[in-house]
Amino acid sequence: MDISSFVTSLLTSFVIFVVLVLVFTWLSRRPGNAPVYYPSVLLRGLDPWEGRGRGTRSPVGWIRQAFTASEADVVAAGGVDAAVYLVFLSSVLAILVVSGIVLLPLLLPLAATDHALENSAGFKNGKEAQNFTIIERLALGNVQKKSMRLWAFILSVYWVSFVTYLVLWKSYKHVSNLRAAARSTSDVKPEEFAVLVRDVPIPPPDQTIKDSVDSYFRVLHPDTFYKAMVVTDNKEADKIFQEIEGHKHKIAHAEAVYAESKKGNKPEGTKPTHRTGLLGLIGKKVDTIEYCNGEIKELLPKLEAEQKSTLHDKQQRAAIVFFNSRAAAASASQTLHAQLFDKWTVTEAPEPRDMIWSNLPKKIYERHTRQTLVYFIVFLTVFFYTIPITAVSAVTTLEKLREKLPFLKVVVDQQVIKTVLQAYLPQLALIVFLALLPALLMFLSKSEGIPSQSHVVRAASGKYFYFIIFNVFLGFTISSSLFSALKTIVDNPPGIIVMLGNSLPGSATFFLSFVALK
Amino acid sequence: MDISSFVTSLLTSFVIFVVLVLVFTWLSRRPGNAPVYYPSVLLRGLDPWEGRGRGTRSPVGWIRQAFTASEADVVAAGGVDAAVYLVFLSSVLAILVVSGIVLLPLLLPLAATDHALENSAGFKNGKEAQNFTIIERLALGNVQKKSMRLWAFILSVYWVSFVTYLVLWKSYKHVSNLRAAARSTSDVKPEEFAVLVRDVPIPPPDQTIKDSVDSYFRVLHPDTFYKAMVVTDNKEADKIFQEIEGHKHKIAHAEAVYAESKKGNKPEGTKPTHRTGLLGLIGKKVDTIEYCNGEIKELLPKLEAEQKSTLHDKQQRAAIVFFNSRAAAASASQTLHAQLFDKWTVTEAPEPRDMIWSNLPKKIYERHTRQTLVYFIVFLTVFFYTIPITAVSAVTTLEKLREKLPFLKVVVDQQVIKTVLQAYLPQLALIVFLALLPALLMFLSKSEGIPSQSHVVRAASGKYFYFIIFNVFLGFTISSSLFSALKTIVDNPPGIIVMLGNSLPGSATFFLSFVALK
Repeated sequence: MDISSFVTSLLTSFVIFVVLVLVFTWLSRRPGNAPVYYPSVLLRGLDPWEGRGRGTRSPVGWIRQAFTASEADVVAAGGVDAAVYLVFLSSVLAILVVSGIVLLPLLLPLAATDHALENSAGFKNGKEAQNFTIIERLALGNVQKKSMRLWAFILSVYWVSFVTYLVLWKSYKHVSNLRAAARSTSDVKPEEFAVLVRDVPIPPPDQTIKDSVDSYFRVLHPDTFYKAMVVTDNKEADKIFQEIEGHKHKIAHAEAVYAESKKGNKPEGTKPTHRTGLLGLIGKKVDTIEYCNGEIKELLPKLEAEQKSTLHDKQQRAAIVFFNSRAAAASASQTLHAQLFDKWTVTEAPEPRDMIWSNLPKKIYERHTRQTLVYFIVFLTVFFYTIPITAVSAVTTLEKLREKLPFLKVVVDQQVIKTVLQAYLPQLALIVFLALLPALLMFLSKSEGIPSQSHVVRAASGKYFYFIIFNVFLGFTISSSLFSALKTIVDNPPGIIVMLGNSLPGSATFFLSFVALK
Repeated sequence: MDISSFVTSLLTSFVIFVVLVLVFTWLSRRPGNAPVYYPSVLLRGLDPWEGRGRGTRSPVGWIRQAFTASEADVVAAGGVDAAVYLVFLSSVLAILVVSGIVLLPLLLPLAATDHALENSAGFKNGKEAQNFTIIERLALGNVQKKSMRLWAFILSVYWVSFVTYLVLWKSYKHVSNLRAAARSTSDVKPEEFAVLVRDVPIPPPDQTIKDSVDSYFRVLHPDTFYKAMVVTDNKEADKIFQEIEGHKHKIAHAEAVYAESKKGNKPEGTKPTHRTGLLGLIGKKVDTIEYCNGEIKELLPKLEAEQKSTLHDKQQRAAIVFFNSRAAAASASQTLHAQLFDKWTVTEAPEPRDMIWSNLPKKIYERHTRQTLVYFIVFLTVFFYTIPITAVSAVTTLEKLREKLPFLKVVVDQQVIKTVLQAYLPQLALIVFLALLPALLMFLSKSEGIPSQSHVVRAASGKYFYFIIFNVFLGFTISSSLFSALKTIVDNPPGIIVMLGNSLPGSATFFLSFVALK
């Protein structure tokens, strides 16, 4: 990619950005669009424009607001998770700034006033040294071999490690306090009184699963057990329920249309009608309101019958057990409940809207098998993703495309389009892969049999983390370190000590941040 | 080591064995020695000889008894641990026997009827093939390259794996049932109602540690908390207590001597006396009974004062917390009790006699530091123990000893002694190391800060396991496999598949048995 392609790429992105910001500003100022742009403000019953200054409506006003918000505001608006995410960002910033404040004024002059680059270029006076940039002069490469200045660089690695440990430890305590505060608020949530039970053993034939869960937990927690809800397969009942809801929506819509038609020139109005056949295009023409009411009346008893049979006959081998106190639920969720590991697995209950119901009844052996399989696929993806991407990139060069698809010549041969395509085509496969990767990882994590959406997100993030680590840390850093390490050892055997001193705290930092992220 | 040395070594061991068995038989038959040889029988109030047949007294009679004992007998006599140990042994035996019953009749003829050894020896008819033994004919080495018979050997590896999985799974369930049965018996133990709390934070100045433990657990377990006992440093009080006990023993002994002397020719008896100075040899001569009574009277108030101050002022940052039900204690021992990991660490309470009291107050950071250090030392011991042993062995050959210590020549030059020494000397360093290793590992494990003796034994066994694994599995198997693997690949590239098929189930078996042992 030449420099003009790079500039083109940069300019294209900037133009798209400016256009989008202008569209956003224009759309968000139209009063009718308020429910789209300020839903949370409206939900809290506030007028999105009144009493909040003009800054709110400007496309950059929210930035000032975001910066002045206190942590309590963030927790109130976005929950603990948002606050923790901000702590994470500020920790990274703190490590960068605190390290930089000490190291830049120290290391930049040390490198800039040395002459390794000039010496290696074969010039003794600085004027003719033109084959390296000013940036290169400021880096470690400009320090001469066996110079005492190298000690400053080694010690600075220890400084970065120390700052990282300190900031991470402070952030850990901060997040821990945030969570504790959220846990001890007075607005109780149902999931704080519940535990999720999986791998319920098959009960004797005269008992339902609900009976067996009830009696098992009543014996183990005689004073604190409140009740158990067994997970059921409600696919059939839900289908009927959705049908009824659809009819209700249609009635509401038809009634609104009917009321509107009364306001017009005809005071008696026109009753809305539709056809019962495919997509409302064929079949008998019926009065929508009457027809839908009739359908609902027919479906309601079917729904009730289906719900009853679902509750009794389609019980799955998982349940939510409720306790009468938070402490009892917390304690139960951390305690073993069965003699063997493959029965009565108890975990904390996720939020109701967070559950992946289809994953709950999966058995422990199935979950382990799926997990192993998913880990293997992720391993292949992380380590060998370059193979298909390189293959695709090799095919999709501009020249190859012109050969294979000659009708493109008309478009491709224009200079402007050619420059744009040359800027994006080589990366296209990589861009598509990177765009699809999170979705793939989410799908894989969900296939593991994890019981909640947020846990799936966490699992996918973990897999993405390994992807980044392998590519940035292992693929790039280590391979180059290995080369330089080998070169150091060959050139200068005692150099291995310098190298070890250099890499140990780095690895420790890496490891600690990894542990902290887990 | 030549064959005569080997036979000498074997004979020496056998002679020692026979002598010890004879001594044991003679000693155990003398009625006065019953408290030494049959303590558990006497403790249960039975006569060690009556009603148990002559077999009991014979040196091999106990073997028959041991074989006929049921598992319930074993649990009653030796506890669950003994029964679990027997399950472990019988699992190993089952794996060996079940594998062998199927494989030996199958594989031995397959190998014996092939001719790879004869062919490689360069002979075509069997008569001249003298440079290999009959044992070698029965092994895999006698199967020809690319023979279909190799499939039988590969499949047999899978058979061994399958048998191992099955037996381990059955043993796991069996042991789990044994433990559950022991846990649900009606004879309750104090530790089943208790949890061990460590890393108690320093209380505010107006509170003792006991107060803070009491109030903390009373709040968290309002209904089930019974009481807390804080660990104290009772070194001083114990010293005085031991002194008093010593005096009491002296009085008991003196009174017995006095009573004995009355039975003799003097009806009034002689009061025992001793000197107060060093070892009873110098100083004033005193009446033992009177003197000791006086000492006890003097020490008792001191002991009381010391006990009081110990209970109040020498509280350590660890405690045993008791609950009013087994379930509450079991649940509490598995539940987190503090916001940060470094405070209020709760674990199951060990048996009282099993506690290592000096380890209890060690703080979590100290424990982690010690653990890391101990693991590092164990790593060095496991991986590099051969270096000092080889060095010592090189020095302690018979010839070197004769050179360095010429006065030994008189003894060493006698033929019998020389043979014995040649049999044992080269292994001496290894024997001494292997004899001292368990003690070293126990010491290291104890230094980790582990709270109970049985946990220390477990930790030391784990370390010993790594030692065995490294030496047997890695040192021996892998190094030879690697050679053969490389040779296979060089000789015959598709052979790698055979090799992988061969080694995968083996590794899986190894891994599973490792997990099961953990």
